Amino acid sequence: MHPLDQAIALRASERQDLSQEFTGATHPAYANMVGPFGGTAAAQLLQCAMLHPERIGEPVALTVNFAAPVADGEIRFVARPVRTNRSTQHWIIEAHQAPGVVATATAVFAVRRETWSDVEAVMPANVPVPDAVARMPVKGMPAWPQRYDMRFVEGAFPSAFDEQEQTHSRSTLWVRDEPERALDFASLAALSDSFFPRIYIRRRRRAMIGTVSLTTYFHADSALLAQVGTRHVLGVAKALNYQNGYFDQTGELWSPEGQLLASTHQLVYFKD
Amino acid sequence: MHPLDQAIALRASERQDLSQEFTGATHPAYANMVGPFGGTAAAQLLQCAMLHPERIGEPVALTVNFAAPVADGEIRFVARPVRTNRSTQHWIIEAHQAPGVVATATAVFAVRRETWSDVEAVMPANVPVPDAVARMPVKGMPAWPQRYDMRFVEGAFPSAFDEQEQTHSRSTLWVRDEPERALDFASLAALSDSFFPRIYIRRRRRAMIGTVSLTTYFHADSALLAQVGTRHVLGVAKALNYQNGYFDQTGELWSPEGQLLASTHQLVYFKD
Repeated sequence: MHPLDQAIALRASERQDLSQEFTGATHPAYANMVGPFGGTAAAQLLQCAMLHPERIGEPVALTVNFAAPVADGEIRFVARPVRTNRSTQHWIIEAHQAPGVVATATAVFAVRRETWSDVEAVMPANVPVPDAVARMPVKGMPAWPQRYDMRFVEGAFPSAFDEQEQTHSRSTLWVRDEPERALDFASLAALSDSFFPRIYIRRRRRAMIGTVSLTTYFHADSALLAQVGTRHVLGVAKALNYQNGYFDQTGELWSPEGQLLASTHQLVYFKD
Repeated sequence: MHPLDQAIALRASERQDLSQEFTGATHPAYANMVGPFGGTAAAQLLQCAMLHPERIGEPVALTVNFAAPVADGEIRFVARPVRTNRSTQHWIIEAHQAPGVVATATAVFAVRRETWSDVEAVMPANVPVPDAVARMPVKGMPAWPQRYDMRFVEGAFPSAFDEQEQTHSRSTLWVRDEPERALDFASLAALSDSFFPRIYIRRRRRAMIGTVSLTTYFHADSALLAQVGTRHVLGVAKALNYQNGYFDQTGELWSPEGQLLASTHQLVYFKD
């Protein structure tokens, strides 16, 4: 079983009306410096809705708020579809550890219909194929980056925190699960949080950081994700603004064929 | 009293532990074609947290999910701080109308500290001052656009739905409340939803649309908003992707002096 599938494995427990409880746990394969990688938490929260017996459709939007540090160990989730319409469904999902809420999520699921479609964002041009780019060395890194095969075309994690401030924080990289795993909504949700903090790229200086809110829009349906399979996707990320303790980050995840799979945004606390 | 202040006026009603109920209503001055303007709903949801007796700090992130059509009339809100830390606070807020939830919101509030700060996004250059740009005519429009003074530099609301598809959906405009009103978090939240649907700009073709999820990051604190006062702010918006019934929109709101006040993202349902 792939470590991501282990990490998002949930056991359904109590159910009261529409509220379904699940029990999960942090996984050492996705440990961060302190506590778990936020991407796995996002994937677990999404998975609660995926597994809920009343679920309709597939995810189109997910917002995760990281409310408090998650301790290594068990996490109790409560997932509730607050509104189910004909083709859309709205969710509130909470993650609890004693003594309280450690994360919340809202999600929108939808049954899609075929319509006029077009991509307006521009995928970076002239990007070498993944095989032509070296994998980022992960030795000495926390567990979670070791669960990704990242190949940076620009804006790599700084090899040294030399405090040489850069003019921008843009990163472009090929990324896939390591070991390989066919792309699905859970892994796409986790990938949305796999961009290193923009302030590291920009300032090449250590800072305490913590994502407070992460929003991902899923443009792909499961059929398109299946087409991507186990191949790399192209990630692009940049910051818009750093202001008094918070910066935001905006990112895109592209299929090798140039389909926008997800756009993702987050707000990150930092202390310099 | 300014119509926006009337629209976001809430009456505190029941309180159970940390959950505080408020009663509000839709306001005819912000009516849309059907139901109310989503921006006012976002401002009402945010206002619940602003008015809650347990609130700390100022908003840094707000996500509103529009779950069902809102009928004209009374709305019952329930606001709950699910986690309060030393300098951050996490909220879940629900809006109810019989027979159920019509919108949900999550918000992050924070007490900011001064840090290294810098803007990385680029404000459009060579934009004429507001006085040099004509105000968009609002005759024949629903009530809510009449509550804004919008001056389009590019990407205006199409004067005719001539089905001449454009290459992009980018809009740049000066915008302020009409009548004038000093900028605050409520009006900034509402402004975040004031960009016309990108698909109208892109396709110049009518479509049924409805925002399903709206996220706004507030980069400004109340002191900076006070500096902007009643002046116009510069709005920029574009779409990234349109795919089988949903498109996303990303936007920025800038002070005249080039400070990024808010970045905002939404996912919109459409039917063509």
